[in-house]
Amino acid sequence: MSALPKFVGLRLADGRSDTAVVLLGAGVVGGALLRLLSAGGHDVRLVGLANSTRQCVDPTGLDFDAAPALLAQAEVGRSDDALLAALDASGAARRVVVDATASAETASRHADWLSRGYAVVTANKIAAAASADAWRGLRAASARGAFYGDAATVGAGLPVLATLRRLHACGDALVALEGVFSGSLSWLFNRYDGTRPFSSLLREARAWGYTEPDPRVDLCGADVARKLVILARAAGHAIDVDDVAVEGLVPASLRDVDVETFLARAGELDVIIAERHAAALAEGYCLRHLATFDANGRAHVGLVAVGADHPAARLSGADNLFALTTQRYRARPLVIQGPGAGADVTAQALLGDLLALAPARFAAL
Amino acid sequence: MSALPKFVGLRLADGRSDTAVVLLGAGVVGGALLRLLSAGGHDVRLVGLANSTRQCVDPTGLDFDAAPALLAQAEVGRSDDALLAALDASGAARRVVVDATASAETASRHADWLSRGYAVVTANKIAAAASADAWRGLRAASARGAFYGDAATVGAGLPVLATLRRLHACGDALVALEGVFSGSLSWLFNRYDGTRPFSSLLREARAWGYTEPDPRVDLCGADVARKLVILARAAGHAIDVDDVAVEGLVPASLRDVDVETFLARAGELDVIIAERHAAALAEGYCLRHLATFDANGRAHVGLVAVGADHPAARLSGADNLFALTTQRYRARPLVIQGPGAGADVTAQALLGDLLALAPARFAAL
Repeated sequence: MSALPKFVGLRLADGRSDTAVVLLGAGVVGGALLRLLSAGGHDVRLVGLANSTRQCVDPTGLDFDAAPALLAQAEVGRSDDALLAALDASGAARRVVVDATASAETASRHADWLSRGYAVVTANKIAAAASADAWRGLRAASARGAFYGDAATVGAGLPVLATLRRLHACGDALVALEGVFSGSLSWLFNRYDGTRPFSSLLREARAWGYTEPDPRVDLCGADVARKLVILARAAGHAIDVDDVAVEGLVPASLRDVDVETFLARAGELDVIIAERHAAALAEGYCLRHLATFDANGRAHVGLVAVGADHPAARLSGADNLFALTTQRYRARPLVIQGPGAGADVTAQALLGDLLALAPARFAAL
Repeated sequence: MSALPKFVGLRLADGRSDTAVVLLGAGVVGGALLRLLSAGGHDVRLVGLANSTRQCVDPTGLDFDAAPALLAQAEVGRSDDALLAALDASGAARRVVVDATASAETASRHADWLSRGYAVVTANKIAAAASADAWRGLRAASARGAFYGDAATVGAGLPVLATLRRLHACGDALVALEGVFSGSLSWLFNRYDGTRPFSSLLREARAWGYTEPDPRVDLCGADVARKLVILARAAGHAIDVDDVAVEGLVPASLRDVDVETFLARAGELDVIIAERHAAALAEGYCLRHLATFDANGRAHVGLVAVGADHPAARLSGADNLFALTTQRYRARPLVIQGPGAGADVTAQALLGDLLALAPARFAAL
């Protein structure tokens, strides 16, 4: 047994072979991507790095390790034009904007970048889940030829989007899509068995970093609804977030208070969840936070009581689950399961999309 | 909600946009592929169809539905040169040989086709699992640029090979690979609980078509070992079938008899399996037919007693299971599960590889 080389760069006819990248977002995910890139084994050059207030550029390539410190020392000031100019000046075969932010404003520019010929690779799911009109603009720009890499937007790179697109391209119609799309909600309901108050588990999940600093962002289900929209669209169904019936877990009385107040009063959730749990248990079921979509366009996100033979009943940890039932996977679904959050796997999903820009090499034996 | 178009052909600069295909093998899988192609939604043209004794060619394109009857009426005689000439005469942008046979002789020609610039898309796993020397020739031919589509060789298109290659390309080292890679052996051990003789289940599996006509082909584990080799190679480990410790399920006394005799004497397996089952059960375990590979190169195929929390313990039907533990999926594996055999999904895996030849369109939103 011997190790095989990991990656061979694709060289274009004119001798250019590399990929120039501008990275937007130098936080947890952006930082993890820089560490992956620093390990080598690819042909990616970083020509710009930016956060919401600063940026640094170098068309010849920034050092992956030194770039964050350089960014921190840069003068305050942001200019997309200067970043895109660095891509143009790089002379690279491929020019890519990587969006590792969670900014709606940044997402609103994806379509423009695509239409100007830049590839976009994103962990930011706002554009791909945007309203139908905005999304059609994105899709039209992508259809004109620029690559839109969104593997990181759902399941942190678990291979569900690529699989749905492959099945759809093969004419295998989606019958139903079901799963647990949130690591934090997976963990909470995999652990909850009625013996410990839900609010206590919620505080533990927050302390572990499984939830957002404001856990209502997780509990409201909006992020899961966005993922469901992205998945349904990949399967050929042009649904909108407004088409998803979202059953949020935050009672009205806790929706408009500040985070500290919410955390102090999170115990108000306990009775609600305990009653749902007891009702499920009485039927021999367990509670799971499920997203479901069927070919008639029905889309739902919320708590569902499932039987012991349901794949979600056997989830552990903070695993995500995606069960795809199609015309050809009808008797039994195609199931993809595993960690669907975390900086390292999210950054790896971004890197995978960057490498997929040289598809001939990527698909090789 | 509205339906989206399934596929947009990639047009090359010179106006050519289609894919010309020669299909070798007009049996169950080849026939299913022709039915998928007949449904349309792609830019594939069939310019040749062959079985082991006959062939028909038409560079302008054979009718997908009529081709099998045309083949049956053709004169006896086979010539690869004539088939490849039809690809050349087609004027198509992409020229592909699709191998839907199980022939070692056909597999031995994959490397030559690749080196002459034809793409190869295959359900035949013999070349990809061949001895290290032969495989290096295949890999070298593929590395020079021609596409080798092998999604159908493992799991009938479950997205495990593409996922392993993606993780490997991203530098995510494989720690362990484990799973149930055979639909027939999955079904047999998912069903076996000691109440009914193993040989009775085996006869039922054969009657359903889950096993080969000679079930020893399944029971010996050689096909699973080949899949393990293909998977390990996709993860960057150049192992050989000879490196796999295969624990076959056919006792020496039944290895050299004819099929009828084997079926008549299959009851000799019952005590062996019953004892293994009872020993596992005494520990609270269940028996599963597992393939395992670890980063130290240890490769094993055979019966393993697994605990109730093992993912294979919860399999049903004839599902395949692939659990990938890597440096970045270390605490919990990335799991892919579902039907891993059957003509329709195998044919769909071939079609997916054919469509992936136009990757820019395939990867688009």
